[in-house]
Amino acid sequence: MKNNELRIGVIGAGRIGKIHAQNLATCVPGAVVTAIADVNEDAARELAARLHVPRAVSDFHEVLRDPAVDAVAICSSTDTHADLIIQAAQAGKQIFCEKPVAHDLRKIDAALEAVEKAGVKLQIGFNRRFDANFRRVRDLIAAGDIGEPHLLRITSRDPAPPPVEYVKVSGGIFLDMTIHDFDMARFLIGSEVKEVFTAGAVRVDPEIGKAGDLDTAVVTLFFENGTIGTIDNSRRAAYGYDQRVEVFGSKGMANTANNTPHAAVLSTGEGVLSAKPLYFFLERYMESFAEEMRSFVNAVRTNTPTPVSGIDGRIPVVMGLAARKSYDLHRPVALSEIG
Amino acid sequence: MKNNELRIGVIGAGRIGKIHAQNLATCVPGAVVTAIADVNEDAARELAARLHVPRAVSDFHEVLRDPAVDAVAICSSTDTHADLIIQAAQAGKQIFCEKPVAHDLRKIDAALEAVEKAGVKLQIGFNRRFDANFRRVRDLIAAGDIGEPHLLRITSRDPAPPPVEYVKVSGGIFLDMTIHDFDMARFLIGSEVKEVFTAGAVRVDPEIGKAGDLDTAVVTLFFENGTIGTIDNSRRAAYGYDQRVEVFGSKGMANTANNTPHAAVLSTGEGVLSAKPLYFFLERYMESFAEEMRSFVNAVRTNTPTPVSGIDGRIPVVMGLAARKSYDLHRPVALSEIG
Amino acid sequence: MKNNELRIGVIGAGRIGKIHAQNLATCVPGAVVTAIADVNEDAARELAARLHVPRAVSDFHEVLRDPAVDAVAICSSTDTHADLIIQAAQAGKQIFCEKPVAHDLRKIDAALEAVEKAGVKLQIGFNRRFDANFRRVRDLIAAGDIGEPHLLRITSRDPAPPPVEYVKVSGGIFLDMTIHDFDMARFLIGSEVKEVFTAGAVRVDPEIGKAGDLDTAVVTLFFENGTIGTIDNSRRAAYGYDQRVEVFGSKGMANTANNTPHAAVLSTGEGVLSAKPLYFFLERYMESFAEEMRSFVNAVRTNTPTPVSGIDGRIPVVMGLAARKSYDLHRPVALSEIG
Amino acid sequence: MKNNELRIGVIGAGRIGKIHAQNLATCVPGAVVTAIADVNEDAARELAARLHVPRAVSDFHEVLRDPAVDAVAICSSTDTHADLIIQAAQAGKQIFCEKPVAHDLRKIDAALEAVEKAGVKLQIGFNRRFDANFRRVRDLIAAGDIGEPHLLRITSRDPAPPPVEYVKVSGGIFLDMTIHDFDMARFLIGSEVKEVFTAGAVRVDPEIGKAGDLDTAVVTLFFENGTIGTIDNSRRAAYGYDQRVEVFGSKGMANTANNTPHAAVLSTGEGVLSAKPLYFFLERYMESFAEEMRSFVNAVRTNTPTPVSGIDGRIPVVMGLAARKSYDLHRPVALSEIG
Repeated sequence: MKNNELRIGVIGAGRIGKIHAQNLATCVPGAVVTAIADVNEDAARELAARLHVPRAVSDFHEVLRDPAVDAVAICSSTDTHADLIIQAAQAGKQIFCEKPVAHDLRKIDAALEAVEKAGVKLQIGFNRRFDANFRRVRDLIAAGDIGEPHLLRITSRDPAPPPVEYVKVSGGIFLDMTIHDFDMARFLIGSEVKEVFTAGAVRVDPEIGKAGDLDTAVVTLFFENGTIGTIDNSRRAAYGYDQRVEVFGSKGMANTANNTPHAAVLSTGEGVLSAKPLYFFLERYMESFAEEMRSFVNAVRTNTPTPVSGIDGRIPVVMGLAARKSYDLHRPVALSEIG
Repeated sequence: MKNNELRIGVIGAGRIGKIHAQNLATCVPGAVVTAIADVNEDAARELAARLHVPRAVSDFHEVLRDPAVDAVAICSSTDTHADLIIQAAQAGKQIFCEKPVAHDLRKIDAALEAVEKAGVKLQIGFNRRFDANFRRVRDLIAAGDIGEPHLLRITSRDPAPPPVEYVKVSGGIFLDMTIHDFDMARFLIGSEVKEVFTAGAVRVDPEIGKAGDLDTAVVTLFFENGTIGTIDNSRRAAYGYDQRVEVFGSKGMANTANNTPHAAVLSTGEGVLSAKPLYFFLERYMESFAEEMRSFVNAVRTNTPTPVSGIDGRIPVVMGLAARKSYDLHRPVALSEIG
Repeated sequence: MKNNELRIGVIGAGRIGKIHAQNLATCVPGAVVTAIADVNEDAARELAARLHVPRAVSDFHEVLRDPAVDAVAICSSTDTHADLIIQAAQAGKQIFCEKPVAHDLRKIDAALEAVEKAGVKLQIGFNRRFDANFRRVRDLIAAGDIGEPHLLRITSRDPAPPPVEYVKVSGGIFLDMTIHDFDMARFLIGSEVKEVFTAGAVRVDPEIGKAGDLDTAVVTLFFENGTIGTIDNSRRAAYGYDQRVEVFGSKGMANTANNTPHAAVLSTGEGVLSAKPLYFFLERYMESFAEEMRSFVNAVRTNTPTPVSGIDGRIPVVMGLAARKSYDLHRPVALSEIG
Repeated sequence: MKNNELRIGVIGAGRIGKIHAQNLATCVPGAVVTAIADVNEDAARELAARLHVPRAVSDFHEVLRDPAVDAVAICSSTDTHADLIIQAAQAGKQIFCEKPVAHDLRKIDAALEAVEKAGVKLQIGFNRRFDANFRRVRDLIAAGDIGEPHLLRITSRDPAPPPVEYVKVSGGIFLDMTIHDFDMARFLIGSEVKEVFTAGAVRVDPEIGKAGDLDTAVVTLFFENGTIGTIDNSRRAAYGYDQRVEVFGSKGMANTANNTPHAAVLSTGEGVLSAKPLYFFLERYMESFAEEMRSFVNAVRTNTPTPVSGIDGRIPVVMGLAARKSYDLHRPVALSEIG
């Protein structure tokens, strides 16, 4: 760090890379972006120019070698994450990495081991933990306002499915979409899931089924502390992005509504009409992307643990693999069966 | 019928008998209560006096023999229902019977057979179908407003558990409490459930566990039409009676909030405070009790099918037995395994 | 009273008379209807038959002379109210009278004097005080939850205007419609209004203007305790009966939403649609009609003051006259100018 | 403009200047901040450094002389606005100016004349027009969804009063606070106000009264198109910043709720608790500050009229002066009386 500012190199200038770079450049106190890398060098240059970032390169190794880079934000495609974590750790950089770390547990374990060995920090991009709604629910639970948790419900429905080509390489609904909900479940309840049971279907698009995936699912979660949870997913909610949680406990319930683009209501002879939820994650979670970066930068600058650790990146992958196995076998599957 | 009025004998003058008798006497057009029977004759007399009912007896056989009685409302204890249905059918009376018909499928089948043979009408007291909130959701689904249903969620939580003595004879949470939700599931989706999976726990009161029952449960439902449903139950919601449903489909979602005693809101430095749900079923479902009687009386007077038939009384019992078996075996159980 | 039951004669078997008679007969403990009078004797007979009331007459004098009548509920047309109060008081009957007592203050004063002289009780039918929403707001204010009141807002909009023929004899919008809001203002704030300012218009139907009346109005109220209030009225709200209040004070705010026929919500690509308010006063205030009768019967049986006194019936008429005068003169008008 | 980018000099680096400079620098496409001026040169330098702005000066004249400045954003204290507008217009700069232009109509007229003469654009900082809630209500009205407007209600309550020292130089509540609501009234209804009537009080802090001002007010608005409006203001709402509007018309109603920091709800035995409104204008209107700048920049770049013109800056001042006069004279005051 120089002048007490964390100098960050952003690797990947695609959709999510742009978001993180812009946030780091404009609304994360104590951070400065000093380099941007993308295999598409034009994309790197354009983003760098817009954000007054001094360096744009096509080869990420240059970022890892750059002494003016204290930390990296890994925003490249999923299949590169684990390897980039390992190289960044070896280069002594602090690491923020988008989720998931990998679809393969051995790759994840190798990455976590490299981080451990290098003694650098790692934060995984489970941004929803930084959303104001979910944070408030978590805080209420942590403060004991609902007593002991008994039941958890997570509603997580996308407005539209991704292209089938993406579905084929996504790792499946449980590793691509539900993974956020698995993380949310652990975050809210503060206890580990020991077993899952999956009910799944193809209701949105038969092509998704042909690609070997599901588009509709309900996963029941058995937590170690006795809480029973359900996650329900759909790849297409006609009314927009549906992101709600509800936790019921011995003293009460905490739950959240969706966020909307405005709070205006029209009352006519037809009924009372209010706004649909914000359309998708870019609209819904924009502030949480900034907040997770503030947390990462703060953790590095104050040398405190990051709020989403490497193991927090591993466990939801185990849950996703178990959820799929449960669907395939039509029986409850313990996480211990996955390894 | 006389003067085109359906003359009804109410059997059982306990809590639910009082409600039905009062509704029939004051707010069900075309109905008149002509007799009330209760083994506690004083209770029968008192209720009859208050409602200007001409006859009060201790022996229900007198009601069944009374030519001035066209129909009976069976409001006695559950263990008497099946036998009373049989005797009432043999006496040629039209029959309204509180749920459940019985905990034993053979008894139910005998009762339904007697009704069939006598050619009388039978309506089972699944009053929640007549609640304005749920009816609206059902109507939206039936009208195609949400498209094909994909996901169903029923939240059904009591404000306080019954006495443990009652728990012991109740048939268990699935036959006593969830049975209403099983009926609601069928009512809303308009398709049969073929398989269930139960996650259950004792979280509210260990005494309930000692009595062999559960107080917290999540039942996953697999419908023939592909809908996946979940019912979550708790015997104690600190904030009152929680009765909500949500149905998600290809074109949208229909769901309901709880009813509250008032719509006033207090905003202070502490936050924005609104009313808890209505306390329990007497407050919450009062209007639905009247409405179900209007439907029954109307079905008899117009000689049309009752809206909740005998088979509608049987299936939720099968579902309850399957739900318990699923909990016991920790695997999905098909309804066809119950018989 | 006989057997500790208050025996009530209902005078007037029209719309509101039917409501009060039915409530007294079925859901007001301690009351019994012993006679019904209506100039249309058939209407009286029909209602009496339905409610098991022993006596139906065309001449209300028979009710006043009947020793089996302890109290009367005056539900006839407004122009008869004051005279009926006087005669009933002279006959020693306890009196419930629909609002308004009269449009003419001298008539009101004569009626109140007769009541005073006879030492009987009088309750005026400002039923909205007994509505759960408004009562909750009043209770919050009375308990100090919002501190000292500073601002009051009453929204009161009908779904449809009355026939113009009725408008002509109604006394005008302020005595016919706003009178309820004037009472509500006093009830909520617990302080008297000393001055009013009226902004009015004809926006709904020009025929109402031709009849010399307004159909849209905003009345500003200056209370003795310093609160400033506004009432806004319209004779036609396209979305139904709009009945809300809001009181803002030094420590917070209490306000109410409308009541709706159900709490179901439909979310689709078009938006999020919920129910319109209940259509009109019969739907919206049904429970408050019963509750005001329970209060009246209780006041008589326990010999305590009625909750809406004769002077509570007079002051809103003064406010209505002042509101009209303010509109005519286009300046604030003190209530002391009315007399 | 250079490279088709509007080069903006920000005059004033205080609270609002910082907001506009940051927005222009980070989230207004097509804009670039090229200079910042503040009498406190350190403040200018610090802000410039943070935002990568090449030039920071203490004398605003340097900005006006700078050929690398196409437009200025006037964010200095109110008493300097009119003079700065005149000088900027004479220098040929496009102008964004914070509200109010001045408390004195002659000063405003001189400024508007200078703008007219120079042929430059002027936009006044009524940012609330760019808020998503109010914009949605305006759009619904403009689209005819509520038919002809009949009634308008604006609730505008601050969480806490400003220091009394500020109150003394603020121009009074109507020019300092209500001025936003006057603009909102015109914006929503799309018609001019011809007359106002004010009810005012000192309820929050007697010191405000001693300074000759009010802290609580209800202003009735008479619009040329027949709409009747009310604005209610308080300098202290215990529950936070209360910013709501409601417009009622022949076909329905459009209204808005407050925005909150989160959408989580806690239900316990105590009731159902949700979040207070966002605390104050910095939280509530942050996005609207960015949006108004996007509109200004867009208007200049496309050479189209600015959405909030100079006359839009003048009329609310007239309304404020009329509102105070109405309070002083305790009678309705026509805007034509103000001049």
